[in-house]
Amino acid sequence: MAVYTEVSDEALTAFLSAYEIGGLLSYKGIAEGVENTNFFLHTTQGSYILTLYEKRVREEDLPFFLNLMEHLATRGLACPQPIRNRTGTALGRLCGRPAVIVSFLEGVSVKHPGVDHCRALGGALARLHAAGADFGMRRENNLSVAAWRPLFAQAEPQADTVSPGLAARTRADLAALEAGWPRGLPGGVIHADLFTDNVFFIGDDLSGLIDFYFACTDAFAYDLAICLNAWCFEADGTFHANMAAALIAGYEGVRRLEPAEVDALPILARGAALRFLLTRLVDWLDVPPGALVQPKDPREYDRRLTFHRSARHARDYGWAP
Amino acid sequence: MAVYTEVSDEALTAFLSAYEIGGLLSYKGIAEGVENTNFFLHTTQGSYILTLYEKRVREEDLPFFLNLMEHLATRGLACPQPIRNRTGTALGRLCGRPAVIVSFLEGVSVKHPGVDHCRALGGALARLHAAGADFGMRRENNLSVAAWRPLFAQAEPQADTVSPGLAARTRADLAALEAGWPRGLPGGVIHADLFTDNVFFIGDDLSGLIDFYFACTDAFAYDLAICLNAWCFEADGTFHANMAAALIAGYEGVRRLEPAEVDALPILARGAALRFLLTRLVDWLDVPPGALVQPKDPREYDRRLTFHRSARHARDYGWAP
Repeated sequence: MAVYTEVSDEALTAFLSAYEIGGLLSYKGIAEGVENTNFFLHTTQGSYILTLYEKRVREEDLPFFLNLMEHLATRGLACPQPIRNRTGTALGRLCGRPAVIVSFLEGVSVKHPGVDHCRALGGALARLHAAGADFGMRRENNLSVAAWRPLFAQAEPQADTVSPGLAARTRADLAALEAGWPRGLPGGVIHADLFTDNVFFIGDDLSGLIDFYFACTDAFAYDLAICLNAWCFEADGTFHANMAAALIAGYEGVRRLEPAEVDALPILARGAALRFLLTRLVDWLDVPPGALVQPKDPREYDRRLTFHRSARHARDYGWAP
Repeated sequence: MAVYTEVSDEALTAFLSAYEIGGLLSYKGIAEGVENTNFFLHTTQGSYILTLYEKRVREEDLPFFLNLMEHLATRGLACPQPIRNRTGTALGRLCGRPAVIVSFLEGVSVKHPGVDHCRALGGALARLHAAGADFGMRRENNLSVAAWRPLFAQAEPQADTVSPGLAARTRADLAALEAGWPRGLPGGVIHADLFTDNVFFIGDDLSGLIDFYFACTDAFAYDLAICLNAWCFEADGTFHANMAAALIAGYEGVRRLEPAEVDALPILARGAALRFLLTRLVDWLDVPPGALVQPKDPREYDRRLTFHRSARHARDYGWAP
């Protein structure tokens, strides 16, 4: 929630001279995004987002993200489309940072999604998976099961200061997930971070998906499991079965889950919860005094895990044959 | 540089239902403004700024500011125009805060203004003074000479920790300004905070003035003196006589200064510098550890005051008969 890099009118005007998007009318730093600096940009030709990539995004991953957005937009998915400059490249440099201009998407993030939002999300997620089918690049999911033990090792000594018994619970989750993690499920490009902030609606219609900076190559059903965690639970752990059912039905309206994916859904949902528990826990324990950004509460995912541990079948998540 | 108040889609949609500006398309918190929370707002009818007033703005002053912006916009000045809702009022309430929607102004703040920018600014300032002539409300300038001694009293014990000798220099400036402060100059509505952030350009053309939350009733030439300080000095104290001459000539191209205003210009410029020195000094000494906002350096105005103390005549500021 900050502008990390200041961009002067002179620097921006020079940068824009390499593009064919018209003359600069206005730009405003946006107080969103904990990873990058974003500006809303108006030119005589339209509205754009200018992103400067800060240290948390690895520069070598940017071609994957940018090519993916271009690929998906070309296939009709409503997502930000990187704008190429006169030399044909989308990735530039501004104020010492890698910088990109993308098309602006209208839409509003829904704070309290309902059943209809979840159904629309499911459909959009399946369309994303389909649109990515012929995308030629790969990026490993570096926040999947292999990453969880090293993450936990950073947080383990202090975990119980966050919630009593958290270290032991997490240790048991980790062992169970490492032992049973499914392999060979249908996969391809997944978004991997489709929280409500990253999905736009205009009225009741889903208008677009944003923030592809965790996108990677992994099991499609894991993406669905992330959405189940992100959209169908309250912060206190309450599970909304009707919203989950709508999310899965919306997905299956576009792409039918295979039997192996249905079988794997409970462990994938538990794994997705552990992934967000662990990254939040590490961030929570690592906040410097006077930090600009309030970290997200890891305990929300500890509470979700209570549900996931007791789930036995995809039906427990509202899946219906 | 922050969003102090979070506004959910539900709260905003309910708020907008009282207005006739179309349906919500998008809104983004803007990382600007240390006083208020601002959102860039897109509806099916256009672009707007939504402002939530935080604690530093006194609610009883809002009718003055809003009526003034409406008055000036009606008279053709390019400034944000408050949007009235269906009940005819511009001032609403959102998330527990006074809130207003104003029209969006295109334009870019110039980090390093040149002679042409200063000339354009002078003309716009004089047009603002003319457009405010028949505005019916008054607001005392509560940051003028009477306010400076109490401000200094807050900062005096620690002033020398900011710059050696600052307390003594400021004490002498204060005594000289209190003794010689001019009364009875031509006056009316002044902006009183027309720094580069608050003036927009598109290319070389001045496209608008924003942020009227220090506007008040005071001497016109004092507003010009504030602009001389804000636009015609470097941070290191270097004075740009050619820019100051263009600023004054731009002003006089619209409204001629009277002889008493010309005579008063040096003391007004010195007073304006002291006003910003003192408020910056108080903020500088009052920063809590881990504050979100980096305060502005008061020493820039200490350096400007060195110039002002030696100035004897408006000619020293580039005024030409």
